[in-house]
Amino acid sequence: MSVTLEQIQNAASILKGKIARTPLLHSSALSQTLNANIHIKHENLQPTHSFKVRGARVKMETLSPQQRYNGVVTMSAGNHAQAVAFHGREMGVTVNLVMPESTPSVKLLSCQEMGAEVTLSGETIADAQIIAENIAHKQNKTLVHPYDDDSIIAGQGTVALEMLEDCPDLDTIIVPIGGGGLIGGVATAVKSLHPDIQIIGVEAESFPSMHAAINNTNAICGGRTIGEGIAVKNVTTRTIEITRKHVDDIILVSETNLEDAIVAFLDQHKSIAEGAGAAGLAAVLAHPQRFSGRNIGVILCGGNIDPRVLNSVVSRKLARLQRIIRLHVEIMDQPGALASVATIISQTRGNILEVLHHRLLLDLPAKQASLDLMIETQGPRHAATIIGSLNEAGFPTTHID
Amino acid sequence: MSVTLEQIQNAASILKGKIARTPLLHSSALSQTLNANIHIKHENLQPTHSFKVRGARVKMETLSPQQRYNGVVTMSAGNHAQAVAFHGREMGVTVNLVMPESTPSVKLLSCQEMGAEVTLSGETIADAQIIAENIAHKQNKTLVHPYDDDSIIAGQGTVALEMLEDCPDLDTIIVPIGGGGLIGGVATAVKSLHPDIQIIGVEAESFPSMHAAINNTNAICGGRTIGEGIAVKNVTTRTIEITRKHVDDIILVSETNLEDAIVAFLDQHKSIAEGAGAAGLAAVLAHPQRFSGRNIGVILCGGNIDPRVLNSVVSRKLARLQRIIRLHVEIMDQPGALASVATIISQTRGNILEVLHHRLLLDLPAKQASLDLMIETQGPRHAATIIGSLNEAGFPTTHID
Repeated sequence: MSVTLEQIQNAASILKGKIARTPLLHSSALSQTLNANIHIKHENLQPTHSFKVRGARVKMETLSPQQRYNGVVTMSAGNHAQAVAFHGREMGVTVNLVMPESTPSVKLLSCQEMGAEVTLSGETIADAQIIAENIAHKQNKTLVHPYDDDSIIAGQGTVALEMLEDCPDLDTIIVPIGGGGLIGGVATAVKSLHPDIQIIGVEAESFPSMHAAINNTNAICGGRTIGEGIAVKNVTTRTIEITRKHVDDIILVSETNLEDAIVAFLDQHKSIAEGAGAAGLAAVLAHPQRFSGRNIGVILCGGNIDPRVLNSVVSRKLARLQRIIRLHVEIMDQPGALASVATIISQTRGNILEVLHHRLLLDLPAKQASLDLMIETQGPRHAATIIGSLNEAGFPTTHID
Repeated sequence: MSVTLEQIQNAASILKGKIARTPLLHSSALSQTLNANIHIKHENLQPTHSFKVRGARVKMETLSPQQRYNGVVTMSAGNHAQAVAFHGREMGVTVNLVMPESTPSVKLLSCQEMGAEVTLSGETIADAQIIAENIAHKQNKTLVHPYDDDSIIAGQGTVALEMLEDCPDLDTIIVPIGGGGLIGGVATAVKSLHPDIQIIGVEAESFPSMHAAINNTNAICGGRTIGEGIAVKNVTTRTIEITRKHVDDIILVSETNLEDAIVAFLDQHKSIAEGAGAAGLAAVLAHPQRFSGRNIGVILCGGNIDPRVLNSVVSRKLARLQRIIRLHVEIMDQPGALASVATIISQTRGNILEVLHHRLLLDLPAKQASLDLMIETQGPRHAATIIGSLNEAGFPTTHID
């Protein structure tokens, strides 16, 4: 038994008026850059800023009055937790969340502000799931699984109905894969209505669980990824089966692909995507030839990125473009040396952002000092000019990565 | 003689297919926060990411074949320059840009990449204008003024036609004012079609030129503002007259209002606005009572914010929320002191981001040292807990602003 188009269409009528009807926006800038027609499905504009409000609401609408009274429980450190907490408040249903101990306090607080009761426990979601199942059992609460549930999958599939309504002539839809709920629903809807539209899934290289399941290999999952929302180890029989049946291909993307996609959304589409939310675009950026000339729907599935992480992604991109460089300059420890270096840099129109002046390092001769400079440039050529001018003026300079 | 609705409608047909038909998006999150219905007109999704492509194209379409052949010249350090360069490339018209010497090299490069010839000259736009007029005169080129031109104003007014088409029951439209071209066109269109819709202009406190002109006072303009695009000293008779006739009120916003609005767009609407682009929302944030319950169209007129400036706005907001705090901690200069401090902070679940360890400052006794710490917290209450714990453990701690 599997999710049907009819269930997804029912889910759509359940959701009407309860969440956002998000726009599918054509991006002229990204289309030009990638030589393809790029349409972005803006699930970052949902309440709680991710697609997770769809499945969560559909599932919670299936509860009997008694089950509503008893309340629900779920395990999640992220968007699913916020979605369930959001609908719990709207529907007057008590929500218990089990979150891993490492959950950032901001996410925890935002769920508590929506009235959810939070238990911090375990290191991973798998640990949290055991606690959640225990609470569900002992307190007669309904477990709202993030993806291993037909109602959830049907709810997530409504994304596709809206995309096809807004742009029926898409030839490719690209979908991030975490547990497989979103792609399960989307692929079912699309292949039922327009079987010739290609459905491409995307996972992070560090969490290739669905890719491995489909290819009957062992997934080696782990490590830190900026795509937290797709860092899922345990895909389930249910989502694997749908994926095997309906998904044309799965692409694995690197951390650099994900970061580049976040920056491309920011810079060229003026939109905020979290790591997992940017995975669809990351796949296109990683394979521009493959997608050239196509009419692509990219699901920007979530926008909840920590502002400090966003800052760091932007800075790292500027560093990769050499628009910010770090230089190590050797100088004599005497008055005027810093002034000379600063003057040379300003004459080449470099902009000094940070200075660290060392005198006491053991690897320097007694009369020598060193400067670590962070400088804003126009790019690699300009950076080379600045370094050249410093070397020419007798200041040995190295570019630090 | 002034711009008419018919001219604006003509401008709309000229523009069809040549620029983006940008979406007007309802923001559920901002609407909830502000207790009003907030619709965002996304001019940050235009080519070159600002509304300026409208007027520039309409003006350039009025040129005779001879004038096209001779080329155009304009003065601007920002969005207007990019818009003229963009259409110059599209239309095969030579573009000369006169930009102030202080123009960031990234903006300069982006115009050069579109084929424009750039002259860097003068400190201000007024200086640049003199050079531009001179080039226009000597080389028989057409000056494309950023706002003091009926074709430009008619072009910018097309923003309003689209907004009314998408949401005819707006009761308020809020428009950033720089030179007055955008509000001139918008107010003309709106008051011709729906005279009861309120038109509210917004200027930065540091550049209240239109506000002063309307109120017959002297504008004191100057200082640094993050709203570069609305930092205009010289509004003209043409735009003052339209504003006097059609604009209901002008609100002045502070730098903090502008920064808060950039962060609100980022955080709650997952969108990038530059300072001037955020001015409309800044006015609502500054006067929530006044706009409560209203059905508001906010023109997000541009999204070209320097990534480093965006980073700094986000960091400053986190600091204002005390989600990042700087602490000065006095310790004895002996082994283990740093470890003790770090342990206390981790026990209170604070996250240390940066450490500076001083020993040689003259204001410290010889056996004492100090730590400057940057710490991530959950907010003011959490910050107070961390400081309390350090004080209690015998480490005198002060919060640095």
